[in-house]
Amino acid sequence: MASRTQNGIDKEECKGAQAPRRCPLRQFGPLLVAMVGLPGRGKSLLAKRLSRYLNYSGDNTKVYDISDYRRKHMKQYATHEMFKPDNLPAWRIRQQSFREALEEAAGWLQQPDSRIAILDGPNVSRAQRQEIYDLIYVQLGFRVMFIECVCEDPVQLERNFKEILQYSADYVNMATEEALKDLTQKMAHYKAQYESPTLGSLWELSCPMVKILDGGEGGIIAHGVSGTKESKILAYVSTARPYQQTLYFSRHGESEYNVIGRIGGDANLSPRGRLYAQSLAKHIQALNLPSLQIWTSTLQRTKATSAGIQAPQIHLHELDEIWSGECESLSYEELLEHFPKELALRDREKLKYRYPQGESYEDVIRRLTPILIQLECETNVLTISHQAVLRCVLGYFLETPPEEIPYVHVPLHTIIKLTLQGYNYNMETIKMPIECVDTNRARPLNCGENRSAEDVLKTIPAHYDSVGQLKKLTPCT
Amino acid sequence: MASRTQNGIDKEECKGAQAPRRCPLRQFGPLLVAMVGLPGRGKSLLAKRLSRYLNYSGDNTKVYDISDYRRKHMKQYATHEMFKPDNLPAWRIRQQSFREALEEAAGWLQQPDSRIAILDGPNVSRAQRQEIYDLIYVQLGFRVMFIECVCEDPVQLERNFKEILQYSADYVNMATEEALKDLTQKMAHYKAQYESPTLGSLWELSCPMVKILDGGEGGIIAHGVSGTKESKILAYVSTARPYQQTLYFSRHGESEYNVIGRIGGDANLSPRGRLYAQSLAKHIQALNLPSLQIWTSTLQRTKATSAGIQAPQIHLHELDEIWSGECESLSYEELLEHFPKELALRDREKLKYRYPQGESYEDVIRRLTPILIQLECETNVLTISHQAVLRCVLGYFLETPPEEIPYVHVPLHTIIKLTLQGYNYNMETIKMPIECVDTNRARPLNCGENRSAEDVLKTIPAHYDSVGQLKKLTPCT
Repeated sequence: MASRTQNGIDKEECKGAQAPRRCPLRQFGPLLVAMVGLPGRGKSLLAKRLSRYLNYSGDNTKVYDISDYRRKHMKQYATHEMFKPDNLPAWRIRQQSFREALEEAAGWLQQPDSRIAILDGPNVSRAQRQEIYDLIYVQLGFRVMFIECVCEDPVQLERNFKEILQYSADYVNMATEEALKDLTQKMAHYKAQYESPTLGSLWELSCPMVKILDGGEGGIIAHGVSGTKESKILAYVSTARPYQQTLYFSRHGESEYNVIGRIGGDANLSPRGRLYAQSLAKHIQALNLPSLQIWTSTLQRTKATSAGIQAPQIHLHELDEIWSGECESLSYEELLEHFPKELALRDREKLKYRYPQGESYEDVIRRLTPILIQLECETNVLTISHQAVLRCVLGYFLETPPEEIPYVHVPLHTIIKLTLQGYNYNMETIKMPIECVDTNRARPLNCGENRSAEDVLKTIPAHYDSVGQLKKLTPCT
Repeated sequence: MASRTQNGIDKEECKGAQAPRRCPLRQFGPLLVAMVGLPGRGKSLLAKRLSRYLNYSGDNTKVYDISDYRRKHMKQYATHEMFKPDNLPAWRIRQQSFREALEEAAGWLQQPDSRIAILDGPNVSRAQRQEIYDLIYVQLGFRVMFIECVCEDPVQLERNFKEILQYSADYVNMATEEALKDLTQKMAHYKAQYESPTLGSLWELSCPMVKILDGGEGGIIAHGVSGTKESKILAYVSTARPYQQTLYFSRHGESEYNVIGRIGGDANLSPRGRLYAQSLAKHIQALNLPSLQIWTSTLQRTKATSAGIQAPQIHLHELDEIWSGECESLSYEELLEHFPKELALRDREKLKYRYPQGESYEDVIRRLTPILIQLECETNVLTISHQAVLRCVLGYFLETPPEEIPYVHVPLHTIIKLTLQGYNYNMETIKMPIECVDTNRARPLNCGENRSAEDVLKTIPAHYDSVGQLKKLTPCT
């Protein structure tokens, strides 16, 4: 549907940033997700993960963190004193921050194309939840959903506290012991003000409410869930995810097609590719990762790459390389000769461009999403896949803007390690010392239909021809 | 991905019907969903709806109803006596039926390409649940998920009882009063044997468990949900759906393009199409449906068709006609002239065939699914859309085999009414007395690449040419 918008709402019905975006039927309107819970219960990590997932799977989502607004009013965090229920001036600042965050979220939801706003904050009082509901549901006619994070597990609480001390902007300038004491007291103040939403027939508002116990490990309780976005969110938040997570990724070793510059196909490894497979196995095995799993595509070159590793393996079609349909197994030179129009179209809009009877990056993202959601629940998985697929995988974890995903650099013979740190993933790369071709093709400057063959060929990576002659001496990076 | 299988599991790893389909990593293996609950709690309706949804959205799913197996052993249902806890011979038959259903489900899950089996039955004892778990999880290494339906709402219970009396095979030959008395006693016997699964740390098995209260209206409680299929199922079952449901559908009135035999485009209504719009509005308005809603596509011809109806309206891109890309606005004659190869490919595999830079029926099904899930939660909605889209919509509710969906007959100027009856939808059509062209094109007998133009044109529906001449006198049906 290249010529249509992604958003399900007709622009004629819900247009304009000035006028509120009133939709005639609420079930298709925007949604505000409000977090509820004491500090250190995993709200912000969940809000962040949820927003990453929703954005990747096509729902334009934005997080509004109330503490960011509070920090605007109080540049330097002082002490827990400001969270005391009887500290009226501080209460006013907190209340003002809550309102500003809520109103900015509401304002954004009225813009065209905005779908889901997440209001991240404690929202511990009934009065605050009523205010959210009155503005979003009653006044704007949009939808609201509450997600409460409850945690009583001492192990989880200690871990969450440590995370806050390490990553919260409030504690950057405080010694650890002092910070821990302060956080404990802050927590006590919040507990005194906490009115947990009750569920069942007692839940106070006519909108969905989900209670997550111990980060999902203790189960969930949900009430009044209706609407496809709400169900999608429920499905996502009901699964417990690890707090410590390390994931490994690699492309297959250099293939015979890589060497001669052909795309797609199901070629086997080149001699250098086989060396990489050995080297990868040695490196991974030396890490002694507990419960290591290997996920590969179903193509020869990834299976051959993983074959030497002693660990349970599964081969998934979802990890297969982008399917280039009628262009499978061609070289860029042949593409230029037989499909010049197609190649120009692809260079112009690589994310959406679909090969004739083949796939686009958007198609790959769609088929890959269930696997990514599964992967997010695991640790110590080595995924061996392909250039385009790993671009989409890294795009998820690193939140690359969609249009940039087709240009993410994922070189051959390189192990990529992602580690969850705070709310984000940290990436490290380990380049193995085994030579290989570079298959990265940069976007040509000229993508017009009238461009010359030279314009196109400029960015084609160096490769060998059928008689073993290197066709280009300056590799592109 | 025309050349690849849909199933995410590589055939090399999990092949063969003889050897159990052991997957190296359980999270990608088959899944058994076991229902739990007293009779009349909505288990079978939910199992049926879930299976309809899963099959439509690409998970090969089959329901195994324990009472079907029981009926094989006892052709004629006698009385509630057979459900008495101390009726040992009858207990043996029920236990045998439980085992047969479970074993057939397990056998099916070991076939390639089977994904999800639903074991529908009371499964009220811990021992039965342990047996399910031991066979599926421990012995076969697959996954298990339990869904318990609990209902205490007297209104729902009465309605469910009525449904059983009306639709259950057990009561076809019994007078209503007698049947009601029998059912009440059967229920009492089951209650005596019911060991409701407890949740939280007390839940007896290490697999997901979802408890649905009052058909979802009382909320849900879930424990240990992990895995993308389990999350997808949780999302589906957590929403309450109406027990009485009537949905209306119509194509737009005859368009200017219909008249001259062109596909796609965004033409307006023909004079006869405008007459249909008036007639449709009059018909629908006369029904006086409470809370009537109109959902249309964003194209001119559906909006013009709904314009005269007094009800809230929304225009959704998901309901737009299949996008025929480079073939938009062409006639079949022009298609045959400019895209003969494409036309032949489409005739050969219409479900999967994707127009150049356009959509396939499978693409339409994918984009439509969230809307269908929403529609399943509503009643008194009139959906005004297009031929291909309504084929996919009816295919969902009527469970048409996917390959037949592109050939479902959805004529112009006809109102289609679907009513939920028991576990299935009943379809009625109301043909309005306003003439129109027939746009249904049957699959040509010859779909080979070497076929003649005449072979192709044989099934093209009658339409007018640019000077108003009818190009074919025998309409195809």
